[in-house]
Amino acid sequence: MSIDKAPKAPHFNITSPAPYVVHIEINRPAKLNAFYNPMWYELKGLFDFFSHDPETRAILISGAGDRAFTAGLDVQAASDPSSSALSSTGHSDASRKATHLRRHILELQDVISTVARCEKPTIALLHGYTYGLGIDLSSACDIRFCATDTKFCVKEVDIGLAADVGTLSRLPKVIGLTSFCKEVCLTARPFSADEAFHNNFVSKVVSGGKGQLVEAGLELAKLIVTKSPVAVQGTKNILDAAWGRTVEDSLNYTAVWNAGMLQSSDVERAMLSGLRRKTPTFEKL
Amino acid sequence: MSIDKAPKAPHFNITSPAPYVVHIEINRPAKLNAFYNPMWYELKGLFDFFSHDPETRAILISGAGDRAFTAGLDVQAASDPSSSALSSTGHSDASRKATHLRRHILELQDVISTVARCEKPTIALLHGYTYGLGIDLSSACDIRFCATDTKFCVKEVDIGLAADVGTLSRLPKVIGLTSFCKEVCLTARPFSADEAFHNNFVSKVVSGGKGQLVEAGLELAKLIVTKSPVAVQGTKNILDAAWGRTVEDSLNYTAVWNAGMLQSSDVERAMLSGLRRKTPTFEKL
Amino acid sequence: MSIDKAPKAPHFNITSPAPYVVHIEINRPAKLNAFYNPMWYELKGLFDFFSHDPETRAILISGAGDRAFTAGLDVQAASDPSSSALSSTGHSDASRKATHLRRHILELQDVISTVARCEKPTIALLHGYTYGLGIDLSSACDIRFCATDTKFCVKEVDIGLAADVGTLSRLPKVIGLTSFCKEVCLTARPFSADEAFHNNFVSKVVSGGKGQLVEAGLELAKLIVTKSPVAVQGTKNILDAAWGRTVEDSLNYTAVWNAGMLQSSDVERAMLSGLRRKTPTFEKL
Amino acid sequence: MSIDKAPKAPHFNITSPAPYVVHIEINRPAKLNAFYNPMWYELKGLFDFFSHDPETRAILISGAGDRAFTAGLDVQAASDPSSSALSSTGHSDASRKATHLRRHILELQDVISTVARCEKPTIALLHGYTYGLGIDLSSACDIRFCATDTKFCVKEVDIGLAADVGTLSRLPKVIGLTSFCKEVCLTARPFSADEAFHNNFVSKVVSGGKGQLVEAGLELAKLIVTKSPVAVQGTKNILDAAWGRTVEDSLNYTAVWNAGMLQSSDVERAMLSGLRRKTPTFEKL
Amino acid sequence: MSIDKAPKAPHFNITSPAPYVVHIEINRPAKLNAFYNPMWYELKGLFDFFSHDPETRAILISGAGDRAFTAGLDVQAASDPSSSALSSTGHSDASRKATHLRRHILELQDVISTVARCEKPTIALLHGYTYGLGIDLSSACDIRFCATDTKFCVKEVDIGLAADVGTLSRLPKVIGLTSFCKEVCLTARPFSADEAFHNNFVSKVVSGGKGQLVEAGLELAKLIVTKSPVAVQGTKNILDAAWGRTVEDSLNYTAVWNAGMLQSSDVERAMLSGLRRKTPTFEKL
Amino acid sequence: MSIDKAPKAPHFNITSPAPYVVHIEINRPAKLNAFYNPMWYELKGLFDFFSHDPETRAILISGAGDRAFTAGLDVQAASDPSSSALSSTGHSDASRKATHLRRHILELQDVISTVARCEKPTIALLHGYTYGLGIDLSSACDIRFCATDTKFCVKEVDIGLAADVGTLSRLPKVIGLTSFCKEVCLTARPFSADEAFHNNFVSKVVSGGKGQLVEAGLELAKLIVTKSPVAVQGTKNILDAAWGRTVEDSLNYTAVWNAGMLQSSDVERAMLSGLRRKTPTFEKL
Repeated sequence: MSIDKAPKAPHFNITSPAPYVVHIEINRPAKLNAFYNPMWYELKGLFDFFSHDPETRAILISGAGDRAFTAGLDVQAASDPSSSALSSTGHSDASRKATHLRRHILELQDVISTVARCEKPTIALLHGYTYGLGIDLSSACDIRFCATDTKFCVKEVDIGLAADVGTLSRLPKVIGLTSFCKEVCLTARPFSADEAFHNNFVSKVVSGGKGQLVEAGLELAKLIVTKSPVAVQGTKNILDAAWGRTVEDSLNYTAVWNAGMLQSSDVERAMLSGLRRKTPTFEKL
Repeated sequence: MSIDKAPKAPHFNITSPAPYVVHIEINRPAKLNAFYNPMWYELKGLFDFFSHDPETRAILISGAGDRAFTAGLDVQAASDPSSSALSSTGHSDASRKATHLRRHILELQDVISTVARCEKPTIALLHGYTYGLGIDLSSACDIRFCATDTKFCVKEVDIGLAADVGTLSRLPKVIGLTSFCKEVCLTARPFSADEAFHNNFVSKVVSGGKGQLVEAGLELAKLIVTKSPVAVQGTKNILDAAWGRTVEDSLNYTAVWNAGMLQSSDVERAMLSGLRRKTPTFEKL
Repeated sequence: MSIDKAPKAPHFNITSPAPYVVHIEINRPAKLNAFYNPMWYELKGLFDFFSHDPETRAILISGAGDRAFTAGLDVQAASDPSSSALSSTGHSDASRKATHLRRHILELQDVISTVARCEKPTIALLHGYTYGLGIDLSSACDIRFCATDTKFCVKEVDIGLAADVGTLSRLPKVIGLTSFCKEVCLTARPFSADEAFHNNFVSKVVSGGKGQLVEAGLELAKLIVTKSPVAVQGTKNILDAAWGRTVEDSLNYTAVWNAGMLQSSDVERAMLSGLRRKTPTFEKL
Repeated sequence: MSIDKAPKAPHFNITSPAPYVVHIEINRPAKLNAFYNPMWYELKGLFDFFSHDPETRAILISGAGDRAFTAGLDVQAASDPSSSALSSTGHSDASRKATHLRRHILELQDVISTVARCEKPTIALLHGYTYGLGIDLSSACDIRFCATDTKFCVKEVDIGLAADVGTLSRLPKVIGLTSFCKEVCLTARPFSADEAFHNNFVSKVVSGGKGQLVEAGLELAKLIVTKSPVAVQGTKNILDAAWGRTVEDSLNYTAVWNAGMLQSSDVERAMLSGLRRKTPTFEKL
Repeated sequence: MSIDKAPKAPHFNITSPAPYVVHIEINRPAKLNAFYNPMWYELKGLFDFFSHDPETRAILISGAGDRAFTAGLDVQAASDPSSSALSSTGHSDASRKATHLRRHILELQDVISTVARCEKPTIALLHGYTYGLGIDLSSACDIRFCATDTKFCVKEVDIGLAADVGTLSRLPKVIGLTSFCKEVCLTARPFSADEAFHNNFVSKVVSGGKGQLVEAGLELAKLIVTKSPVAVQGTKNILDAAWGRTVEDSLNYTAVWNAGMLQSSDVERAMLSGLRRKTPTFEKL
Repeated sequence: MSIDKAPKAPHFNITSPAPYVVHIEINRPAKLNAFYNPMWYELKGLFDFFSHDPETRAILISGAGDRAFTAGLDVQAASDPSSSALSSTGHSDASRKATHLRRHILELQDVISTVARCEKPTIALLHGYTYGLGIDLSSACDIRFCATDTKFCVKEVDIGLAADVGTLSRLPKVIGLTSFCKEVCLTARPFSADEAFHNNFVSKVVSGGKGQLVEAGLELAKLIVTKSPVAVQGTKNILDAAWGRTVEDSLNYTAVWNAGMLQSSDVERAMLSGLRRKTPTFEKL
């Protein structure tokens, strides 16, 4: 099984609840799944691995325990003098501090971008506290479902900073630069599952607890993995490339992409299966 | 009447239900209005013509029969060995196949882009099956109304490919790159009129059958054609140019556009009519 | 008090209903707060001033009287032969007219862009007639609340022109290039508070009259001014810069921005206050 | 021979001076090869055809006679009242005139863009008068050689207009937005072969007359046609797509392009031929 | 005479050496024309004025005295504790300092951008020291001529900073991001007139002293002012807009621009004058 | 010494010929410094390390031996069936091959992009064969010097492919999309040091052998390292970010960058040293 070959990531539970489906659970429930240093690198390692893993066609990501997807950055850990993140970098000169901070931010951004670049569809399953980094991380996923009890918050202004690992770049892409988007980013006010649904951040609110949420996510993932992985992964790549570019550029890119991909045997298999009302099977990718 | 001068398009019914309004009906109901080769070129010819036709100020597009706007690509026809679309192109070399496929995709994209580039406002009236190409085509229109019975589907992954004639480039422009957008593109799951409305794909769901739908579309078209065609066509052009560009670029483009257009006698006519509470008439465009 | 130092603007009431909060009220209620020449320059002066005023952290903008935020351009004044805006510019040559019109449009756009560029968060409080320029202006604000009685209209096609001081560039940024967006821009049909909420133009519809609306806006502003101004103003700048650019560009820009800004003492103050459950205070900005 | 299948173009001489090489000669020497209406459509037809013609791998374009590549637009013909180009369009309203002029410009631009989009490398061979349209046209080619006697001129300001069929968009791409570029565009002053070479507009100045020039062009074309057409046409496409886009976008586009194209048998053939010091042959494209 | 109506600018000599030509001379020769605070605002005022002045069709800018175009920023003045530019801004907090520095840089950039945005062609005449700001300023002009004795230098790294008022944004536009461009920016090494010519920064090196240089510039300006100002100013605008955008965008922008501008009577006047070999005259703009 | 801490790279000689200067020599002279698999990863490791190494302020890169900077890809090794690069990837399906090829290209591109992203200035010293990958690699450096004997070649079309690890994306940025650029990319014809200089690919041609070349590079590097590293590294970052973006975007980015960086003590040190004609020293970065 491919999950056995995944890099070590002690703060995450990795399971395969169905063929071709991987479930990554953030596993630090005692701290509301808040992130501290080692978790960033584990997360990056996992998504780098599953992005290319031929036995993976869809990825679920959720938080362990009943209380949180993730409460965000572990502020206590980050404010510890020994932490490199936001405290003194050993430089007294402001420009040198700035250089080190920039490098550090780019490094953390790259972790979240690894999730966004993952070739396989990613489904974030949100419940309880989904604060700060929880928004950065889930905005980098393709699909978001949440439980009725989810409490969302773009928390960063409450710790004195503009969110810098992805939320401010990806939320306008996901929900538009709406009044709601500005309101929740500028105020750090929490918002509910209903608001998340009304504003198109999540595409489904699942009643019941975390169990029902995971079930709903799994059902979606199981549907995705029956499709041609060539078609699914191409769809994801092209949709993401459309953003911030003109329609003309996007159309040309699509034509170049499909010039190679339409030669897939999947097209014939899928078409014939459709006509014969059979379920096709596809080679790994 | 200008519709008599339109190019021949046997698979489409062309009528003019009101002055300045053209209604293009996809007319292959026995096949759920599915597209096969000759229809592409007819469609392009029609929109090339009406884009510049001075007697046309708004275009309705709908599907004939009770069952479908269009079920999409006629897969049976496309999978026929004699069809050029996706089958063998007579080349054994993958790069040469790729070149031919790219040319073919660009050609089909250009048909849908002809709809998008049409200078006159276009209103898609969707009912029944609105699958695959039905999404590509209606996403290229300006306004979308649907009937309560509409069944939408971004069908392409079900035939083993990433949608490549427009949906993946235009859907993020129309509804944002939301969780819902990714969900329906990655899964090919059908979605309802209600979901289409909640997610801003259509701006109205019309109760009743296709008749009521066409009536609602016609009412909208009749409203549009009372307005200055200079104002309406400029509004369409500027809105479309705003996409994928910065606000600064869009503002400058608008100023250059209106430098020529504000010299229109329509401005004075419209203003005076407004002040005098009369209905203005405008020269053709 | 800083509002005493603001430039003169006789057509606007300027108050400070709470510390760090400025309320700018368009004050020409007898004309439904419609804009004529002097008001443009007053508006620009005010936003240039408050953008950099260290005692201002949030700005409310509303319309005086019970009937309108603003009915838009004062068409009667604009159609007066002595007005420079849209009437003859003293040139018979079309290209020279075009040059003068372009300069004039760029000048008016710059007024609205001054609102958009304002470093401090801006909250538009909309009630009654919010027509034409009312959409241009409120689209340039960050957050929009409205009263239940608000009547919205992208009015410009009714006066024979494509909206050119901001609506067509900013509405697709705020609500997407949806069917609804095209519909209201191409038809100039009025729309209601409910439609504005459904389509994400406003993030709250406030029941009751204008008093309740201002109260709701003030409550939001009061929340914003308790946050670090470094964090809030950075959040606004980065969100606006994200639009029309790629996610990659936006992430890099964010890292450069925060390289300087994370050195703020606000970060430590905010973090420690959070851990100690106290309310932090921040230096002016 | 494929040139026999080319569309009729009486104002152009079409020859094939070597296998896979096509030579298109503008043939109106009595008028210094100046362009009038029918020639635009002939030119578009030719490049549309040869772009996809499998027996064409390189295209030379030159002017017949000793005196000119082309003197540009035939101003006498264009100023004829019966010509549609720049004279009255039958509309008295400035905005309607503007609409017709814009459509006409877009149509002419599309002719030159057909040259630029041609999948096969194009080599402009310039001698004598290379004025106005001569710059628009040759800027849309890939490679430019000239004779020592060539007289270049961005002539448009001399006829009262900003060049609008390509020069102002492509010259900054070809030679940068240098002082020289601005100087020759703003003054319409003629410039010499030496200046064209110093400023990188041409990559070779050929001594002797037009005969030697064509010889040099043919030699270059013969070299190109020995190479893999997959490699050559891909190189052209990727270089053109690089312009006006970021390096990151260009790299990603290149990877998608070559994902399909590296599967070519040409790679193995070319590599093995290189190692064995033999001349490879490649399938048509 | 229009130069009498120009705003006061005591540090600049303003003359009109020929009809429609304005000559702006930086006039602080005792300090090698180095810039200190008041000069920035004078410069902006002048270019704002002449940009729209109908009696101005070309602008020369040079430096008074024999020794320098400008030696750049007056470092002694800038390092004075009372200067706001780079010294303490009265804030101890790094993020607040950063905010004030950013505002100040944007303000100075806007001065140079006013030169770049000037609707009329600008010709920089460079001699002697052309250091630091001298490169920022002349890069924002359209055309650059220099004397043989000119000593160029992108001086900023020598005062510990990356050039921030325009050089790093405009030099790659003017000369490309060549090895030479990076070399002179990264080292602050001076370069000669010959190098400036070889690398396309200037389009002419004038032998003799400053007198001959001004003569050459005046000759060029006199040529420009004989052309249609509609054509010349349109050419400048379109060329500048081409930069950083795709060819497709630039072509569309050009078509929209000329839709209004081709209606100019200048086109007919210029064409007929050309056919009759007479000199046309054009209305002011 | 920091070079002792650099990652192992057996195919490269690493020396520090002067304080703050690192010299990386490609060391496979028996194969004309041609690249095979392990060298890519070593190269990436080195530039990742030196990019952040505080004791490095300038990097020279050259080729060992008298004959070549690098002859490019080791085609013999690449055509070996056991090599993953271009041979069979174990998939019979064209779309799956395409996916693996794309991943592989992106991986190799990332190596060259690591050179381009290196925060410290990089100087390529080119002699002898500088073929294929030699152009990709040196185009990603900031400055290029060459010896008189250098033989340049964009070799890729000779091995049946469009160059895909950087040349086609970066050469238009370095030298423009000139006739010469297209000519050498489409033909794979070798070009000389003189042509490289005329076309601005290199900024200096050094007479004599490789020794003199390295001396000239070292002299340049020694000059760079005397400057403020804050200023130098900022200059590099801003220049690179200018490419493919508008001037307006670049100016805003510069202001944000310098908001943090002008707080550097280097500014005061550099200014005072300049005024006192002393040599400043700067803290590491």
